[in-house]
Amino acid sequence: MLGSFSPEFRDDLAELMRWRRDVRRFRTDPVDAAVLNRCFSAFASAPSVGLSEPWRIIRVESASARVASIANFETANAAALAGYTDEKAALYAQLKLSGMREAPVHLAVFCDDATCKGSGLGAQYMPQTRAYSVVGAIAMFWLAARAEGLGLGWVSILDAQKMAKDLNAPADWTLIGYLCVGWPTENHATPELERAGWERRTPNLHIETR
Amino acid sequence: MLGSFSPEFRDDLAELMRWRRDVRRFRTDPVDAAVLNRCFSAFASAPSVGLSEPWRIIRVESASARVASIANFETANAAALAGYTDEKAALYAQLKLSGMREAPVHLAVFCDDATCKGSGLGAQYMPQTRAYSVVGAIAMFWLAARAEGLGLGWVSILDAQKMAKDLNAPADWTLIGYLCVGWPTENHATPELERAGWERRTPNLHIETR
Repeated sequence: MLGSFSPEFRDDLAELMRWRRDVRRFRTDPVDAAVLNRCFSAFASAPSVGLSEPWRIIRVESASARVASIANFETANAAALAGYTDEKAALYAQLKLSGMREAPVHLAVFCDDATCKGSGLGAQYMPQTRAYSVVGAIAMFWLAARAEGLGLGWVSILDAQKMAKDLNAPADWTLIGYLCVGWPTENHATPELERAGWERRTPNLHIETR
Repeated sequence: MLGSFSPEFRDDLAELMRWRRDVRRFRTDPVDAAVLNRCFSAFASAPSVGLSEPWRIIRVESASARVASIANFETANAAALAGYTDEKAALYAQLKLSGMREAPVHLAVFCDDATCKGSGLGAQYMPQTRAYSVVGAIAMFWLAARAEGLGLGWVSILDAQKMAKDLNAPADWTLIGYLCVGWPTENHATPELERAGWERRTPNLHIETR
């Protein structure tokens, strides 16, 4: 039946979610356009508030644009490190928090808060749902990429306004995420931050009732 | 190979994404706890900034809490309608924008911005990534629910602060989304807003390059 899914598919989906990781260790070889385009098609079926589809993507390709992006991250990361002390600082300094130098594909994903698409439906009380729509679309893209074997790393240690300016993004666009995409050097079901001893996942979801 | 996925699975995943909809028309019969718990397990493997896992869930069960939630939506929806004129207002008035009266499961999903989990990693420059982590987790839950045949409707036409207060949520929690979950009365691959003539999806994703 159309739109009906088997228990086997559900198991595979759960497996995909378990193997979806934030990847920072990439091989440098390129990603075929056909593979990448299959992943991009996940955006077309992503949920968006009022069907506003507010996602905007800039692919960061030129050497100069990449140098600026990497400098942005490295400045922010040094400042972030300075916010930790003692063992936490020592551990932070050892973490690899971006694969920007190796990843063949860099995507800056924005939200266009000035879009007239959807005529504002659903966003009058919670305008932040436009940004949330972009995040949901990234989540779909992330799973589609992982199903192809591609890794994705979401870099958030950066000055988002400077990034938008450096990329000459329109004034109404807000940076939601800077994504590195490429073939991972290794696959893990456990997050890198957990393997490095920074933090552990909570085994059980706590749900309150009212 | 572990963490490796077949072309057939990728096709089914794309199909799942196409059939994932924002559902507002639910049957009133209950959802088995076992089915719902399988869906909740998607939270455990969702991405979160610095492994902060900032999602917090309140299940809205009591008659009094539901009455308050529905009143919140209906007040906001009447105000939103007043923001449209002419044909758009007439069309808006005809739209069914929430299934709160029928859906057996109501979930208020929050972000805990005061969590010390993850020690702030990745969120110093972009603290909004904590809210984005909650959105990503909702996206995973949405797909898991749809794979079970369950519909999910995300209600954003409401006063989020009033909702948090009505539900007696801790002060540090911010409402991200109010979710209705249940068995849909019908399945569609086309969004309800598109079928109703409110808005159409954009067929092609436009990507700029720098």
